[in-house]
Amino acid sequence: MSAADARRYRDPTAPVDTRVRDLLSRMTLREKVGQLNQRMYGWDAYRRTPDGGFELTDALYAETDRFEGLGALYGLQRADAWSGVDHTNGPGAEDGAALAELVQRHVVERSRLGIPALFVEEVPHGHMALDGTVLPVNLAVGATWDPGLYERAAAHAAAELRSRGGHVALVSALDIARDPRWGRTEECFGEDPYLAARFTEAVVRGMQGPPAEYFAADKAPVVLKHFAGQGATVGGRNSAESELGPRELHEIHLPAARAGVRAGAAAVMAAYNEVDGMPCSGNRELLTELLRERWGFEGLVMADGLAVDRLARITGDKMSAGALALGAGVDLSLWDEGFTHLEEAVERGLVSEEALDTAVARVLRLKFRLGLFDQRDGTVPFPAQGRELSTAVARGAVTLLRNDGGILPLTASVSRVAVLGPQSATAAHQSGDYTAPQRPGTGASLLDGLRRLAPPGLDIRHAPGCALTGDDLSGIPEAVAAAAASDLAVLVLGGSSARTPGTQFDANGAARTVVSEMTCGEGVDLAGLRLGTAQNALLEAVVATGTPTAVVLVQGRPHVVPAAGAAALLTAWYPGPWGGDALAEVLLGLAEPVGRLPVSVPRSAAQLPVYYNHKDTEYGGYADEDAEPLYPFGHGLSYTSFAYGPPRLSGHTVEADITNTGERQGRSVAQLYLRRLRTPVWPRTLELCGFRAVDLAPGETRTVAFPLGAELPGRGTVVEFRVAQSARAALAAVPTQSFTAPDETPL
Amino acid sequence: MSAADARRYRDPTAPVDTRVRDLLSRMTLREKVGQLNQRMYGWDAYRRTPDGGFELTDALYAETDRFEGLGALYGLQRADAWSGVDHTNGPGAEDGAALAELVQRHVVERSRLGIPALFVEEVPHGHMALDGTVLPVNLAVGATWDPGLYERAAAHAAAELRSRGGHVALVSALDIARDPRWGRTEECFGEDPYLAARFTEAVVRGMQGPPAEYFAADKAPVVLKHFAGQGATVGGRNSAESELGPRELHEIHLPAARAGVRAGAAAVMAAYNEVDGMPCSGNRELLTELLRERWGFEGLVMADGLAVDRLARITGDKMSAGALALGAGVDLSLWDEGFTHLEEAVERGLVSEEALDTAVARVLRLKFRLGLFDQRDGTVPFPAQGRELSTAVARGAVTLLRNDGGILPLTASVSRVAVLGPQSATAAHQSGDYTAPQRPGTGASLLDGLRRLAPPGLDIRHAPGCALTGDDLSGIPEAVAAAAASDLAVLVLGGSSARTPGTQFDANGAARTVVSEMTCGEGVDLAGLRLGTAQNALLEAVVATGTPTAVVLVQGRPHVVPAAGAAALLTAWYPGPWGGDALAEVLLGLAEPVGRLPVSVPRSAAQLPVYYNHKDTEYGGYADEDAEPLYPFGHGLSYTSFAYGPPRLSGHTVEADITNTGERQGRSVAQLYLRRLRTPVWPRTLELCGFRAVDLAPGETRTVAFPLGAELPGRGTVVEFRVAQSARAALAAVPTQSFTAPDETPL
Repeated sequence: MSAADARRYRDPTAPVDTRVRDLLSRMTLREKVGQLNQRMYGWDAYRRTPDGGFELTDALYAETDRFEGLGALYGLQRADAWSGVDHTNGPGAEDGAALAELVQRHVVERSRLGIPALFVEEVPHGHMALDGTVLPVNLAVGATWDPGLYERAAAHAAAELRSRGGHVALVSALDIARDPRWGRTEECFGEDPYLAARFTEAVVRGMQGPPAEYFAADKAPVVLKHFAGQGATVGGRNSAESELGPRELHEIHLPAARAGVRAGAAAVMAAYNEVDGMPCSGNRELLTELLRERWGFEGLVMADGLAVDRLARITGDKMSAGALALGAGVDLSLWDEGFTHLEEAVERGLVSEEALDTAVARVLRLKFRLGLFDQRDGTVPFPAQGRELSTAVARGAVTLLRNDGGILPLTASVSRVAVLGPQSATAAHQSGDYTAPQRPGTGASLLDGLRRLAPPGLDIRHAPGCALTGDDLSGIPEAVAAAAASDLAVLVLGGSSARTPGTQFDANGAARTVVSEMTCGEGVDLAGLRLGTAQNALLEAVVATGTPTAVVLVQGRPHVVPAAGAAALLTAWYPGPWGGDALAEVLLGLAEPVGRLPVSVPRSAAQLPVYYNHKDTEYGGYADEDAEPLYPFGHGLSYTSFAYGPPRLSGHTVEADITNTGERQGRSVAQLYLRRLRTPVWPRTLELCGFRAVDLAPGETRTVAFPLGAELPGRGTVVEFRVAQSARAALAAVPTQSFTAPDETPL
Repeated sequence: MSAADARRYRDPTAPVDTRVRDLLSRMTLREKVGQLNQRMYGWDAYRRTPDGGFELTDALYAETDRFEGLGALYGLQRADAWSGVDHTNGPGAEDGAALAELVQRHVVERSRLGIPALFVEEVPHGHMALDGTVLPVNLAVGATWDPGLYERAAAHAAAELRSRGGHVALVSALDIARDPRWGRTEECFGEDPYLAARFTEAVVRGMQGPPAEYFAADKAPVVLKHFAGQGATVGGRNSAESELGPRELHEIHLPAARAGVRAGAAAVMAAYNEVDGMPCSGNRELLTELLRERWGFEGLVMADGLAVDRLARITGDKMSAGALALGAGVDLSLWDEGFTHLEEAVERGLVSEEALDTAVARVLRLKFRLGLFDQRDGTVPFPAQGRELSTAVARGAVTLLRNDGGILPLTASVSRVAVLGPQSATAAHQSGDYTAPQRPGTGASLLDGLRRLAPPGLDIRHAPGCALTGDDLSGIPEAVAAAAASDLAVLVLGGSSARTPGTQFDANGAARTVVSEMTCGEGVDLAGLRLGTAQNALLEAVVATGTPTAVVLVQGRPHVVPAAGAAALLTAWYPGPWGGDALAEVLLGLAEPVGRLPVSVPRSAAQLPVYYNHKDTEYGGYADEDAEPLYPFGHGLSYTSFAYGPPRLSGHTVEADITNTGERQGRSVAQLYLRRLRTPVWPRTLELCGFRAVDLAPGETRTVAFPLGAELPGRGTVVEFRVAQSARAALAAVPTQSFTAPDETPL
């Protein structure tokens, strides 16, 4: 080997693969194993000094000593109740980059070959760090039906992350919401694979930019989580088993991952759950045969936290668990002990050094693509406009489910409004799980928004009525009095995924005993889907006043709410810190309600599962309950109304004329559904295969066109298309003539 | 071909296969197609004459003309609201055989080759014909944990069937109860594959006798239904989709079928549902590759009613639906149009004549095995002791779930008993779906049983309190008064699967609009699992009297009942017409409660699914509800108590000492569970792999021994065993030392 070759991996002009090969050839087995481990919590790596700077901890020294370097570090910037990081001790927008640089300098110095660490951060809906812009949760993102908007928000989040020294974004993107009992429903883009796939593409494009050898300095490689089928665990039980067969998995739970891989996603995270017996972390069929061999994925597979160690339940010990995971296709572990024994596992022949090298190469490749070995010019500033983007997504998510008598938007005849409910005057519970503590004064509740935006004469009174949880009814009379003395009651109810320091975790780091007000979020599954005694009592009492009531649900899942007596019903899911502004704009008519349901809203938990794209069987319903949901997928009212003309099939395009038949400007979200007529396997009732938002002035008609593409079914299948404003409307809609998918159609 | 050969199929001494080949070689394509069709309803084939005899109908003449014979005739003896057959017009025990002979004579005369028809009858829990002995439903059978008893009852049912000219028994045996919302839960032996498999074997052995070329004259070939996965349809929705993967299917839903095939079952019925996209009736993987090629099944596959025609939803028309079903492995259709077009389908090349011949050969083979071509000596008398057997099964099914303060059995201190509730004084709703009308005076309610069996001095008063359905509360005060004036209230609540002439059916013959009191049975799925307003109000009112209350549930599924205040709780599922006698015996202490739960009893519908053998994940429960069921699988109290010693593993046997620690004779149902410790796929928490009932005198100890056999897991798997009185108790029980399954273990 020549001297020139000896430094080949340091040459920024060499191709990444060449650099990886060169570096790999120089590494010891121990150094290689180190690259596959991501053991530490980032917040254990540093401590604040009295002068407000940071110093490194013995824990970090021990960890970097162990493998003579550090593969990856999770959550260096993470702030929340679990990490114990808050405004008093955590890195913020102004000093996060300095902390990252301090840690990285140590890692590189400790590494014989100068290999930097990957800094991996939670970015499920904005970077989960102090000053990180909190975006609405994915369920709200899905409700916008606007992947373009989300792509911009995701680009912003990546720039924030990179500006403070973070590298890799852990992104909720692949779970499909099939059972609202699941506490992580909020992290899903919805129940539909096509809709979810469009948002998964958007987050990859937004965060990573276009596929390229090197990432731009303000772009962050994503780890799409979770792969696969986590939304299908039985009973909506977190990380329980999924009994799905391969067709159901491929049709519903894999399209988002496929779309993400096609868009160039740098990494995916293997899910906790098993799929029909094989845990994802040990599932070679999924992680290697499907993901890499069939789909051509060349990126990294990361394990979920302690998921490798969990495999010891079937292998008998953690070393063999590590070998199983590596052999299946996991490259980088998270917190596990299993991967620390890979050196011995290789020596004992449980796993080949070749397999290990392949995994190490994937880690190194990502580091090279990030430019971590190179001196990059310039630094990325912490970007502005986070609040605007977050509010824009929230605005797009506001979904008007009912508006009897057109009581919304507020008219001039309403002069007194009572703003009620436990979610009405605080933004603390608007943001979902995986949210960093917010600096005081951040965010706007609905009350804040109304007070800021309402016309001067509007009399706004407020009473919370009750707390989010519990059965204390003592505040209800005050709320009832306020409602009775008003022309309109706006009652803001909902759930909470806000973790407080009271949240307790078991030995594996998973939330178990929740002593905060959490009713949703990871580990907080809800069998009955109910808001609880006090909120339900408040709702019934306010409605009973006879004052027209608009119920606003701030929530991470659809709840079953006794709102039959309320004239109007809205949700914005968890709309983020500034969700109150967005909701106020819609209530006041300053913005149109353009959100559409990304999930079906059930009538009760007893009716589950409810999703529109079930198989087309002749099922007529339960003896005691309708088979249909309360509100269907795709539903959402406007302040105007639209008429849809019959769809036309012309070549590979479906067209329909849409007319604004009301008296206000408005946006209709036209939804294209296909229905299989002849097909080799049992079809679903309907399948979403396109959507377009159309802005229309009163009386205006436009033609919306859907070019048919990769979403077409396989060859020879005969389908028809329908264009409608919801899945339920599509069932009754006029179809196109039937269409026989041509031989060359992909799928 | 010689003249001797020309009659080979008529030679009773020739091997069946030779006879089949010979006959087949003489048949026209049309005659062959006729053998695969079972179009008519049997009750349309005859009519009563004024003199009390039978005459054949034009409908039968037309049908036998069409294919110059008749393949099979469904339900010639069937009596129920749907068929319109009752005591005024239907065949009974005394004249069923004459009717069968009349029809058969016509069929044979009409057939050029003299081929008789198969008479196929519903025998889901006894022969569904006038005078047929009604047995408890399968769920009650499962609760006995006594396959030997059920084998005797099944043998009786077969003898009844054959005595009146029926041939083939349609038997509910393969569906596994995984979601109690499903109205056909009552037709399942329970939630567990091992338990169900033992009863499936029992019904095959009981009805068919030991495997043989020719069936004995009092034995009936069975059609085991349904194959496969029907108990796994989403939401407990009848004949909806099942999304299962192959491992879940094989581990939970196929073992009963496998056991039935091994026991020699003559036929299986393909299920309505699809499995992960492929409808069972068109599922070659299931019906041919698995059932015939892997399992070696040589019998007949029958379609469920109109299930072949349903395939037109994917093929586009009924002829191709018929071709798809035949090609997949369906031999004999039921009511479909699709199979009537098989002649044209062969001519058009949609299906080969060879495939058709194979199916015809299977039909003919069954006819030869039944001796239909031969003159058999003697006739089978209608057997006696139906009532005794039915009552014995009911007695075995009575399950004591709670007995606070040992209020049961009734002691001498109880001198006044109030027998209350809509199920207390009528046997009309004790028998489940698929029950023929009973002659007046048949059966015993609990009130009947108590009055007959109680000691002379017992003061028994009665009030129904309310109806089974509806919200009429006007009868409750009378029931409350009776309870208040008594020492003990026995409150008999429950569901009903009794069809009345008010039941309505859609065009496909499936029940849709139920105008009777049905709350369970085929097509009557129940989302909330509730008994309804009136029954719940009655329960709460009776308990509120303070009189100790024993609640008895007569039901086809576990219901969610507000019975927390009741001191005792029992169920016997639908125990059949004489269930009231069995229940009275147990309440009075004349019989011990020996039933054990074959299904987990949920706390609410929101908690579903609940079954003990879920995967062993770390799930800790919902935020608002326990993860565990209210009562676990295997649970059932005795009037005495038992202590289980630690289990010992000795070679291929597990042993444990069981002691009766109470003061009464009693029976413990010892349950052997295995727990996988090292295994290639994710294990279940526990798996039942043996059970034995042990009768013990007070203070007596016996050793129960479980020889380990085919139920052992695959080679190299490491397991431990536990012996306990329920699945919940097994979780806490001491295990054996671990056991490594040897290489030669089957699976």
